[in-house]
Amino acid sequence: MIPETIHVPVNTMRQFMEEVFTKIGVPANEAKICADVLIASDLRGIESHGVQRLKMYYDRIKTGQQKAVTDFEIVRESPTTAVVDGHHGMGMVIGTRSMQMAIDKAKQYGMGSVAVRNSTHFGIDGYYARMAINQGLIGMSFTNARPSISPTFGVQPLLGTNPIAFGAPTDEDCPFLFDAATSIIQRGKVEVYNRIDKPIPPGWVTGADGKPMTNAAEILAALPKDKAALLPLGGPGEELSGYKGYGLATIVEILCASLQTGAYLSDLLGFDKNGNKQPFMVGHFFMAINIENFVDLETFKKTTGDILRTLRESTKVPGEDRIYTAGEKEYELEHIVPLEGIAVVPSIQKDIIAIQKELGLDYPFQI
Amino acid sequence: MIPETIHVPVNTMRQFMEEVFTKIGVPANEAKICADVLIASDLRGIESHGVQRLKMYYDRIKTGQQKAVTDFEIVRESPTTAVVDGHHGMGMVIGTRSMQMAIDKAKQYGMGSVAVRNSTHFGIDGYYARMAINQGLIGMSFTNARPSISPTFGVQPLLGTNPIAFGAPTDEDCPFLFDAATSIIQRGKVEVYNRIDKPIPPGWVTGADGKPMTNAAEILAALPKDKAALLPLGGPGEELSGYKGYGLATIVEILCASLQTGAYLSDLLGFDKNGNKQPFMVGHFFMAINIENFVDLETFKKTTGDILRTLRESTKVPGEDRIYTAGEKEYELEHIVPLEGIAVVPSIQKDIIAIQKELGLDYPFQI
Repeated sequence: MIPETIHVPVNTMRQFMEEVFTKIGVPANEAKICADVLIASDLRGIESHGVQRLKMYYDRIKTGQQKAVTDFEIVRESPTTAVVDGHHGMGMVIGTRSMQMAIDKAKQYGMGSVAVRNSTHFGIDGYYARMAINQGLIGMSFTNARPSISPTFGVQPLLGTNPIAFGAPTDEDCPFLFDAATSIIQRGKVEVYNRIDKPIPPGWVTGADGKPMTNAAEILAALPKDKAALLPLGGPGEELSGYKGYGLATIVEILCASLQTGAYLSDLLGFDKNGNKQPFMVGHFFMAINIENFVDLETFKKTTGDILRTLRESTKVPGEDRIYTAGEKEYELEHIVPLEGIAVVPSIQKDIIAIQKELGLDYPFQI
Repeated sequence: MIPETIHVPVNTMRQFMEEVFTKIGVPANEAKICADVLIASDLRGIESHGVQRLKMYYDRIKTGQQKAVTDFEIVRESPTTAVVDGHHGMGMVIGTRSMQMAIDKAKQYGMGSVAVRNSTHFGIDGYYARMAINQGLIGMSFTNARPSISPTFGVQPLLGTNPIAFGAPTDEDCPFLFDAATSIIQRGKVEVYNRIDKPIPPGWVTGADGKPMTNAAEILAALPKDKAALLPLGGPGEELSGYKGYGLATIVEILCASLQTGAYLSDLLGFDKNGNKQPFMVGHFFMAINIENFVDLETFKKTTGDILRTLRESTKVPGEDRIYTAGEKEYELEHIVPLEGIAVVPSIQKDIIAIQKELGLDYPFQI
């Protein structure tokens, strides 16, 4: 019996994840990378992309939708640019190596960008922008994903949640780190509402009839059948400028697919026309800008910090006591989660206990 | 008496604008550029940024807030990057020259970007992304602007409407051209609602009390006094992810200010602390990516076209007969406006007739 949410020390969880990835065939140094991306997500409170996703990767490797050993092929390269084929390897390995290429190019030539094809789910988009921040650069990361968002005036889920990540160093410990889907919410949020049995606010999800859906269980049943779609940032129609979120999602699709002759929109379903599982063929686009080509790094950090402080210190909506800047909430959680451990809800405990059994591991996940 | 809206042939309007700019001191070849940017806006149906803005530039040159003769100074340069000081010259001249630098760098080195300081209002953001499209590249253009958007949970207008423009060529005549403020709407839209005496939909604008404002006249009176602010894309608070629009506006502010040690947020008011008019000190950031560093141009165009066609041809919301992709509506208008002429509403006729008189010009703007 699994009674309640447990909290697992970060190091235990990291070791467990590394061991799981290694046992199913990921080379040791690459298993470390995969675990680090998932842990980074749990540390930042983005629970949907941390340990909750471990089973997804595990299952996909087992079914052959992605490969444990990453064949990272640079198919084309110039001093500032590259095209990489990930050959359906581990998205986190493909992502970190590609982003590091963009960063190295930017360090040497001012700017760098890498388009990636045949990748797989790479965890949180912000991880890659953060890599650039840590090395004193501006970083951007984009990925397409399985079809979820309907276009403005449409009801079919076609665009992925297509997130945009942008990071910049500041003169504070907390960097500026924006990481957001171009839909209003992600699928994971519907799952959370379903677990706590709460109605979904109208405006997040559209039904095939163009009307808002608010029952989380119904939405989760309808999404895979194309009978529901996530709405783009800005909502349905044009009144609140939903075409802007739709346009942003399309930009991400173009950057992630058109620069690498890759798959796009419904190609990313993970199923072929006969309903058989196939690789996801995800595309990414990474970019880095060397700040020191423009201004010295300390000046950049100071200006950016000043902008953020001015925003935070401005007049609040009556009743609100705080204005955040992008990445601030998550940064604070990075300092709280290690004290409490990573929360693992019962359904996820069940998943990882099953994985343990299959792999003959013995971590203390059950109370 | 000015009875109603008139329609002026595009060439007449272009010639008039060129002559106005020339008469107030803009060198002839640069006056052509300024007129072209304004005409491009009228052609695309973005009336707020076309002839309606002519008087604004005219007045700002007269008051010394911007200079008719542009001193375009490259203060720092590398093969892929540059920092430009516009010395408060004509934003359209600074913009086109800077974007062309980014494009030339990208053609030669794969990527190019240019950060600009001390610029002025440069017209529609999409004009610069379109320059890249026309030369077979991906183009991006960003600008900050006078404070208008409040941060999530804040009520003070601090961020400009900070638009994002992104353009990519396709295999159709109509390119993909996204050009959108990171607020839900721009100030110009409130002016339109005021003219037609229609209430503003709740959610576009917040009052100092954090409540939605819906009376256009009240909003226009409150905005300059910091008693109203435009809401970021996604709306107030977090329920519909307003923090994403706020985050995107902040990204634009960082790109446009921090890379050039420039002015930001409230510095861009156009007034000094004593209430005296001063230059706007606008910052821009331009970027170009050479597609052929990644894939051959025809392949890119085909993939992008396929993505857009798939979106347009997908299932519509019942009752809606068309799904658009970014820039499509405006592209169609480019073919309609020349047939009808550029619409000039009575209040704008008054403006340009006054300018005519002052400059001793004689164009047939009055019926």
